[in-house]
Amino acid sequence: MQRITNCILKQGNEILMLKKPRRDWYCAPGGKMEPGEHIRGSVTREFQEETGLTLLHPELRGVFTFVIKEDGQQFKEWMMFTFYCESSEGERLDVSQEGELEWVPVSEVLQKDMAEGDRHIFQHVLTSNEIIYGTFTYTTDFTLLSVELDINGV
Amino acid sequence: MQRITNCILKQGNEILMLKKPRRDWYCAPGGKMEPGEHIRGSVTREFQEETGLTLLHPELRGVFTFVIKEDGQQFKEWMMFTFYCESSEGERLDVSQEGELEWVPVSEVLQKDMAEGDRHIFQHVLTSNEIIYGTFTYTTDFTLLSVELDINGV
Repeated sequence: MQRITNCILKQGNEILMLKKPRRDWYCAPGGKMEPGEHIRGSVTREFQEETGLTLLHPELRGVFTFVIKEDGQQFKEWMMFTFYCESSEGERLDVSQEGELEWVPVSEVLQKDMAEGDRHIFQHVLTSNEIIYGTFTYTTDFTLLSVELDINGV
Repeated sequence: MQRITNCILKQGNEILMLKKPRRDWYCAPGGKMEPGEHIRGSVTREFQEETGLTLLHPELRGVFTFVIKEDGQQFKEWMMFTFYCESSEGERLDVSQEGELEWVPVSEVLQKDMAEGDRHIFQHVLTSNEIIYGTFTYTTDFTLLSVELDINGV
């Protein structure tokens, strides 16, 4: 099962976003966990590789299950761990292997093109310190079929 | 990849523990995530099935990677998500399909027989509100080979 860690880095009033070339969709930088890594080790390594920046004290803010369906059947499942951070060290890259890096004003983040589920994630993380849990179900071409979000628990 | 969710439920000055018959080791009740579940949905369902109790507002306190090694090679990897909760509803079972349930005074929890890594987890969760991240490496017969814990981040 694939496991992704990523981080929403806010510095001043801007968020560091990655624009992926395939669809020009924006996302939070991150990538795949390696075998034996724990999630905070993974996000620190991935963020550094992708942006040049070392995250200082990233905090977990979202744990998500992604289900991909094809012809109504479950085709794939993966997990994503989203961190939030307000401090980093190092020199930022302009372009990474995954796409272009861009500081985006907080007020413009939700206007960017992105996977529909990611908009829910940014919206929550930029307005709350609570961890959000959820399941996103997508088609294989990334149309969002359903969302189940749990912010406050039972 | 197997994913386990469990919860350390504290009520008054006691912790609800499950004693598994195989080795008489104690642990926090929980179980395997089902496809498409998010982690808080999973822990609520599993805890209810195993104890009869419905958790109210469980909070995530630990995210762990478990590596099982055989002959020095990685044999298996799974993840565990540990919640903490101080409130529940419903009638507690005495025995579940997985073993006997027992309220254990907080001061006695760390003296119980348990997987060595679980002792680190109980020790942290019973003394801190911070989320702990870590990787535990075990042999196939559950001897702990190494522990990497990250509590405060970089």
